[in-house]
Amino acid sequence: MKPAPTNALPLGFSFAAVNCGLRKPPNLDLGLILADEPAMTAGMFTRNLVQAAPVVLCREHLRQAATRMRAVIVNTRNANCATGPAGMAASVATAQDVAKSIGCEAEQVLVCSTGVIGMPLPVERIRKAVPALFKATARKGASFDGFTRAIMTTDTRPKWAAARCRLGGRTVRLLGCAKGAGMIHPNMATMLSFIVTDAAIRQPLLQRALASVVPTTFNAITVDGDTSTNDTVLLLASGKAGGRAIARADADYQRFVKALEHVCHSLALQIVADGEGASRVIEIDVRGAPSDADAVQVARTIAQSPLVKTMFAGADPNWGRILAAAGRAGVKFDPSRTDIWLSGILTCRHGVEHPFSERDAHRRLLRDSVSVVVNLGAGRGKARVWTCDFTTDYVHINTSYRT
Amino acid sequence: MKPAPTNALPLGFSFAAVNCGLRKPPNLDLGLILADEPAMTAGMFTRNLVQAAPVVLCREHLRQAATRMRAVIVNTRNANCATGPAGMAASVATAQDVAKSIGCEAEQVLVCSTGVIGMPLPVERIRKAVPALFKATARKGASFDGFTRAIMTTDTRPKWAAARCRLGGRTVRLLGCAKGAGMIHPNMATMLSFIVTDAAIRQPLLQRALASVVPTTFNAITVDGDTSTNDTVLLLASGKAGGRAIARADADYQRFVKALEHVCHSLALQIVADGEGASRVIEIDVRGAPSDADAVQVARTIAQSPLVKTMFAGADPNWGRILAAAGRAGVKFDPSRTDIWLSGILTCRHGVEHPFSERDAHRRLLRDSVSVVVNLGAGRGKARVWTCDFTTDYVHINTSYRT
Repeated sequence: MKPAPTNALPLGFSFAAVNCGLRKPPNLDLGLILADEPAMTAGMFTRNLVQAAPVVLCREHLRQAATRMRAVIVNTRNANCATGPAGMAASVATAQDVAKSIGCEAEQVLVCSTGVIGMPLPVERIRKAVPALFKATARKGASFDGFTRAIMTTDTRPKWAAARCRLGGRTVRLLGCAKGAGMIHPNMATMLSFIVTDAAIRQPLLQRALASVVPTTFNAITVDGDTSTNDTVLLLASGKAGGRAIARADADYQRFVKALEHVCHSLALQIVADGEGASRVIEIDVRGAPSDADAVQVARTIAQSPLVKTMFAGADPNWGRILAAAGRAGVKFDPSRTDIWLSGILTCRHGVEHPFSERDAHRRLLRDSVSVVVNLGAGRGKARVWTCDFTTDYVHINTSYRT
Repeated sequence: MKPAPTNALPLGFSFAAVNCGLRKPPNLDLGLILADEPAMTAGMFTRNLVQAAPVVLCREHLRQAATRMRAVIVNTRNANCATGPAGMAASVATAQDVAKSIGCEAEQVLVCSTGVIGMPLPVERIRKAVPALFKATARKGASFDGFTRAIMTTDTRPKWAAARCRLGGRTVRLLGCAKGAGMIHPNMATMLSFIVTDAAIRQPLLQRALASVVPTTFNAITVDGDTSTNDTVLLLASGKAGGRAIARADADYQRFVKALEHVCHSLALQIVADGEGASRVIEIDVRGAPSDADAVQVARTIAQSPLVKTMFAGADPNWGRILAAAGRAGVKFDPSRTDIWLSGILTCRHGVEHPFSERDAHRRLLRDSVSVVVNLGAGRGKARVWTCDFTTDYVHINTSYRT
């Protein structure tokens, strides 16, 4: 993917990235987002009971300073999770150091970490690098690109997405980036995403906008069913595009939500496409469920089935595995009313095989992007989720991550 | 594994197996258990909403004739699932043919199938082979061994287990076999298991005995989280050991349950050990949960995590993945009170890393059988489940099962 063009950058933010010694130089491993002035901020976090120190700190800082955030600092390689009081002290010290450099309060700084769980964070390396990080924000140019690289773990490529919309006659920009390749699962997985905009919008509406798009984007993807301890989505709005701040759910707000959804949807699909070892993206559409919640349940069960995911790695139109996964989802439906399409080919009609060319189906399933449509014939509920196939590379990547 | 010795065979049953053309000759693909006289029978079946025709038929026949069953016929290669009315007609015709050969009613015959879902069952091949199957029951010798081979799908080896106990001064024998390697998950997975005994026991107690041991044996294992459409455990008792039939939950009953549990436990662990692509068995012990049900929930979430299972493939003592999986299980506990042992080595104490030798841990995790103990420090609930590691071979086996 090409770096984001300079004119995609929302006004009021700078980015920087350095190597601080967590990865081998010259690999970037520490990134900074700096807001020129206090920014409105919205955040959503993992629902895993085990929460990394930086997640706990972010929640607390958002409670105190969501309307006046100044910076986000992110390190890769180490999740600073299951690290006890020392881990919390490390995140706090990082926020304090950044705040001192800016001349603001510590609660105006958000801290994120991603990487291995349970290893002490070498926080001194991060603290020593803060001055260099600030020096880098002064440089013109490719700093957003550097930031997108500094947050990668097993990602094979940086991920970013941009959008524009017109609010009150002014052009507003949104620019987001994300990292995440394994331990990806609702809710939000080992996924960090940072979105900045120069829209003027009040904080409660910013939070509401984020909460409204996450369920159908970041929370609609799964790579391996493992919800991470560090998932974080942060959305910062500088207001620098000018104009009156959005203060209610009007037409401007709807346009903003649409642009935000575009960014989040693109980032979510980039994450799935870069899923550990993935060779293709699978869109799973469930229709005709008793309710939307039931449809989500069936779609996720199919998306997580190792047998379904390996079947797609082999481009094998083995629809029986999809029906079997649907059947164990805990949702009531009549299998003899169920239809299944694979990339547009009807393979199962009313619960039994519908004649189709296996050769054609195999050829279509070899594409980068394939689809499953399941109609349960049991109501009007529907849902769409995305996953990737399960290849031997996923296993290779995860058998020796640490030792 | 060596074939079962002849003196392990309970009185009153014969076994046979032939090739009927579902697999390439001379591979056995059709097996028969014949009871000399009507036998008490207990059964447990998949809880998948999608149920194969033979499962539906077995339930019905057990309702009608659980106290007078005469035979079980089993084919491999084809699950006869999602095959509509034609599939049901095929199972019924099979039962009728077997009943005719015996001279009994169709409901005294149980039918099981395992293999690919959604393909029409070539039932004529099975029906044509029934006479040869009966001829084979007359032969002395290795027919139980043949039966254990005739039910295999992706299994790499036959699985059997035997036990004896003394009831009312008489020796009673139990002998069981099972198949299953993928799509293995509670409840019972693509698993077929057949256990015969010459114990004299009334049918309701036989069913109760089976129901009491399945939760901690067959329902405590997972290979890939996929519950099958065909899971079946059948237990037949001939009463030929003699003596008064067990009629209540007395000391004899308890001894019988203990012997039955031994057989089911052994078969369940053989299934996990032969899990598709598995290189080692992982025993997961969860203690200190708020309740036993909570402990099961946490243990199963750990056992199904692809990140945990690949970590064991690499013998990597990455305990953080275990803590993260526990944290998303939906059970309340305090991570800062949680301890984790890997094959006897304390790796996490009160939620943070406890100093240990990674080299020692790695060496211990290279063994065929490894263990995880998690103490949540949140109560007295406990559970034990078994799974296997997740290797590239699992993916190889499942990417091209059908095409």
